[in-house]
Amino acid sequence: MTDYQTIIDTIGAQCRQSKDRGKVANYIPELAKVSDSKFGIHLVDSNKNNYYTGHSDEAFSIQSISKVLSLALAFTLVDNAILNRVDVEPSGDPFNHLSLLEFENGIPRNPLINAGAIVVADILVTELQDPKRDFLQFVRDLTNDQTIDFDKKVARSEKKTGFKNYAAANLLKSYGNLKNDVETVLDFYFHQCSIAMDCAQLTKAFFIFMNRGVCQRNKTYLTLGQVKRINAIMLTCGFYDEAGEFAFEVGLPGKSGVGGGIVALLPGKYCVAVWSPGLNAKGNSKLGMEALEKLTTESHQSIF
Amino acid sequence: MTDYQTIIDTIGAQCRQSKDRGKVANYIPELAKVSDSKFGIHLVDSNKNNYYTGHSDEAFSIQSISKVLSLALAFTLVDNAILNRVDVEPSGDPFNHLSLLEFENGIPRNPLINAGAIVVADILVTELQDPKRDFLQFVRDLTNDQTIDFDKKVARSEKKTGFKNYAAANLLKSYGNLKNDVETVLDFYFHQCSIAMDCAQLTKAFFIFMNRGVCQRNKTYLTLGQVKRINAIMLTCGFYDEAGEFAFEVGLPGKSGVGGGIVALLPGKYCVAVWSPGLNAKGNSKLGMEALEKLTTESHQSIF
Amino acid sequence: MTDYQTIIDTIGAQCRQSKDRGKVANYIPELAKVSDSKFGIHLVDSNKNNYYTGHSDEAFSIQSISKVLSLALAFTLVDNAILNRVDVEPSGDPFNHLSLLEFENGIPRNPLINAGAIVVADILVTELQDPKRDFLQFVRDLTNDQTIDFDKKVARSEKKTGFKNYAAANLLKSYGNLKNDVETVLDFYFHQCSIAMDCAQLTKAFFIFMNRGVCQRNKTYLTLGQVKRINAIMLTCGFYDEAGEFAFEVGLPGKSGVGGGIVALLPGKYCVAVWSPGLNAKGNSKLGMEALEKLTTESHQSIF
Amino acid sequence: MTDYQTIIDTIGAQCRQSKDRGKVANYIPELAKVSDSKFGIHLVDSNKNNYYTGHSDEAFSIQSISKVLSLALAFTLVDNAILNRVDVEPSGDPFNHLSLLEFENGIPRNPLINAGAIVVADILVTELQDPKRDFLQFVRDLTNDQTIDFDKKVARSEKKTGFKNYAAANLLKSYGNLKNDVETVLDFYFHQCSIAMDCAQLTKAFFIFMNRGVCQRNKTYLTLGQVKRINAIMLTCGFYDEAGEFAFEVGLPGKSGVGGGIVALLPGKYCVAVWSPGLNAKGNSKLGMEALEKLTTESHQSIF
Repeated sequence: MTDYQTIIDTIGAQCRQSKDRGKVANYIPELAKVSDSKFGIHLVDSNKNNYYTGHSDEAFSIQSISKVLSLALAFTLVDNAILNRVDVEPSGDPFNHLSLLEFENGIPRNPLINAGAIVVADILVTELQDPKRDFLQFVRDLTNDQTIDFDKKVARSEKKTGFKNYAAANLLKSYGNLKNDVETVLDFYFHQCSIAMDCAQLTKAFFIFMNRGVCQRNKTYLTLGQVKRINAIMLTCGFYDEAGEFAFEVGLPGKSGVGGGIVALLPGKYCVAVWSPGLNAKGNSKLGMEALEKLTTESHQSIF
Repeated sequence: MTDYQTIIDTIGAQCRQSKDRGKVANYIPELAKVSDSKFGIHLVDSNKNNYYTGHSDEAFSIQSISKVLSLALAFTLVDNAILNRVDVEPSGDPFNHLSLLEFENGIPRNPLINAGAIVVADILVTELQDPKRDFLQFVRDLTNDQTIDFDKKVARSEKKTGFKNYAAANLLKSYGNLKNDVETVLDFYFHQCSIAMDCAQLTKAFFIFMNRGVCQRNKTYLTLGQVKRINAIMLTCGFYDEAGEFAFEVGLPGKSGVGGGIVALLPGKYCVAVWSPGLNAKGNSKLGMEALEKLTTESHQSIF
Repeated sequence: MTDYQTIIDTIGAQCRQSKDRGKVANYIPELAKVSDSKFGIHLVDSNKNNYYTGHSDEAFSIQSISKVLSLALAFTLVDNAILNRVDVEPSGDPFNHLSLLEFENGIPRNPLINAGAIVVADILVTELQDPKRDFLQFVRDLTNDQTIDFDKKVARSEKKTGFKNYAAANLLKSYGNLKNDVETVLDFYFHQCSIAMDCAQLTKAFFIFMNRGVCQRNKTYLTLGQVKRINAIMLTCGFYDEAGEFAFEVGLPGKSGVGGGIVALLPGKYCVAVWSPGLNAKGNSKLGMEALEKLTTESHQSIF
Repeated sequence: MTDYQTIIDTIGAQCRQSKDRGKVANYIPELAKVSDSKFGIHLVDSNKNNYYTGHSDEAFSIQSISKVLSLALAFTLVDNAILNRVDVEPSGDPFNHLSLLEFENGIPRNPLINAGAIVVADILVTELQDPKRDFLQFVRDLTNDQTIDFDKKVARSEKKTGFKNYAAANLLKSYGNLKNDVETVLDFYFHQCSIAMDCAQLTKAFFIFMNRGVCQRNKTYLTLGQVKRINAIMLTCGFYDEAGEFAFEVGLPGKSGVGGGIVALLPGKYCVAVWSPGLNAKGNSKLGMEALEKLTTESHQSIF
């Protein structure tokens, strides 16, 4: 049996000493305040055993990691109808590039780039009675933790500086691929991204993706087909234009956020969350990527 | 235990009756002569049990499927040094688009698009003593079948009409990313693609990728890390700009060719080859894609 | 001496009978209401003789034609400093494509595509005391006609449906190339485009560009160098991705608008305005383009 | 009357002292051998008066300047039928970019980018009895100078290193827009570009474009419409992605070559050739561009 605790302790020790920690995101002012010395890992295996080290219980802004949760909620509401409005191909482009939208008539490349996640947000705004409340409740239920909340300061900060997201939403609107108001959809989207969670909570929330759609409390949220599809999207699209590299070096479905968090999972085996705020040139947590590479190398396990 | 034979028989029966069979590739004159009524599947599981139906023992032109074999051989020769000359990101573009080469200074997006495979061919031309002979021997040894051969007529046909590949090779040369002569490299490349194999042989050749680098005769060809890397490339880049769709619907690493063949595999479980010459709009075997989707749906298995 | 009246009468007679009149713009609801049977020409020569036919004194929405007037006003205010924020190269792209903005770090290709005109609008909003009032006064003075006004209904209509312009402005803002608020700049921009003028008024306004910067009342607005520069921009960028075609077939600097108007000029000789609301596939007045081609062919005159 | 000699002398004196002379092209080895201290101007006015200074009678490789001469010859042979195979829009892209070819199905953007000039070369190879001999004769006749010749060393040098042109020709072939063999067309094209001429000879050859199609010996080569069209193409496309800048700063139709030559003309007034081998970042003669800007500024003349 794999000794996850020893592996994680070794990785934690190495990462804490690392000099080259990447650069904390500064385009959202609130995020820029976080210290790059933070580092935490939390791993839960299929038997719900927990292994962790470092700042694994300190909350941070999950940002784009939330896109997987909103996608999952959308799947439960409209299933494959999502695919009428967003494709599932890797973008091959930096995370904030709008050009493909124009070449492809307003259909975002996949639901994990910003334009695609805004379309998913639009679906939730249409389908949910009280979108922000209901989405938050979904995350709290998945995690079995009613303390999880939006970080209003981060949401406001993002709204004031989110010009690229406004550009994307307006472009979608011009192609008829946004049903609700730009402001309403982006207000939801900025809140969704602002949710604060720690590594332990994230592994609880993502437990369903490694456990055939069933959460830690044995409630079934997704069909097997939906889990397969969401994991496939994470593997091919979860890391902006570094998705191929992540699949190549790590070999797990996962999703990163500019807050420095990454969640990844090995179906049937474990779910893991890492946090280190410094980002590499592609916008993914630098030490987080290295930690996950070490984890799969040391444990000799991957989906491949 | 999964009853693969029953599943395969059902799929075969459905596919044989399908009216919408796609369109046989006509850009290589020799390939256009193949009847679109052909259909075969061969599956070998980890215990080397074989399951098959239809024209599974009729040879066809493996075309781009050969790119995975040349990539594997290159890994055994220079390992990760390949990555100095070709990236591992999905292209997000049709299979024959050269534009990314220009935006990215002559570094092909990945080794499974034509430009990337030509770079891999260039590496083999440099590293092998007698490139065509040695590559063919590698395929024969993997398959344990000394009758496998180039189809010289197909190679000549492709040489006479392969203007896009000449364009790609010259463009690579202009960026200094082709070390040997354009003619020499393309002669090797056209031969490599012309190899004729049937579904049974293909599953034998690709057995190493589902069996941790070890072939059916228990010889180790690749390290575990190399297998992980090649499978990751197949999953993210194996189906041109339909790679995301294939991962989403099928959930297996695999590779298609314009001859109508597709090979896919579930690590540790099985390796499967399908052949149906009619292609869909993206250039992948239409019935082949459908057959593999049915296989993973019916067997409730995928890497996710 | 060229008999402009006879040429114009002939063109008018031909165009009025034309069956294939293009398609009236429908993306701004207010514009869609205009009848495609309208057709007018007005030509003024360097001696201020006037020649006209058809609906040459009926006002229409000048739309993008206004971009040349705002550019001229910006040149009088900050001269070549404009070039720090917008380039002068043809875009080679449809008029509303944002992709180049991203590849070129927020510097629009030229001041006559929407993104470039929005940057010019931003400059005017910064430099003018009361931007809308002052710009309107500039147009009234050039034309010596104090009745010219914004069409508030058109401005409102465009504001409600101008998602691509909102996308462009937000993208510019994200690159730091918009100094004022998105709403403020676009409010100015939509008003600028909504100005209603007839062909006669347009030739008066554009008289300065054919008369070395001096208007009909002998007031000097632009230096010779500024006139040269603005005319060069009109010739290379005045007709979206049909600019080359217009230079090739007509050979005059000019500017079109989706309201169906086109103004063109032969330096030192004449200034001409045509109006026909039906547009060709490139978004330029179909009959307007044909009329100007006939004019230069019949008069054996062009800048070349 | 404009005192061209004084203006040219002043420009020559300034340019000879310039420290920042750009960089001599090194991608064709033969061209790299030319000294960057060379500088010459030759201007001929409509009365056939000649004004010159510096190395104006020293031959250099005209390179892309030849594209205008081959285009003119093609116009005399097939007139507007050229337009079935090449467009007349500015490319908005660096001179050697192939990407637009792919997005536009093998129709080059205009006849002055390499791909477009290769299509024109293909037309000449089809239409002329002995293409190289006949084209050379055309240039000799225009110039009234039977000593003008190909530089075989330059042609060979370009053939050996012209991988991008091979890529372009093969890409055209793959789209069916090259009727003759790649080798035959490129052999003609490399010879065409290798012609050696001095500034004086170039102004004689381009005299027809400023003189309504009539050469210095009063022979008519082109119709007025053809001259208009060729001049329009030079203005909008003659300087790669610096065409807008040249129109903006200089305001004349013209064409540059990587040999450091530029020819430009003011219809009805003069034709001028400049030579200075150092190129700017866009691939145009650095001092040549500055000299022509000074010429139009000092003479207060341009087409605008």
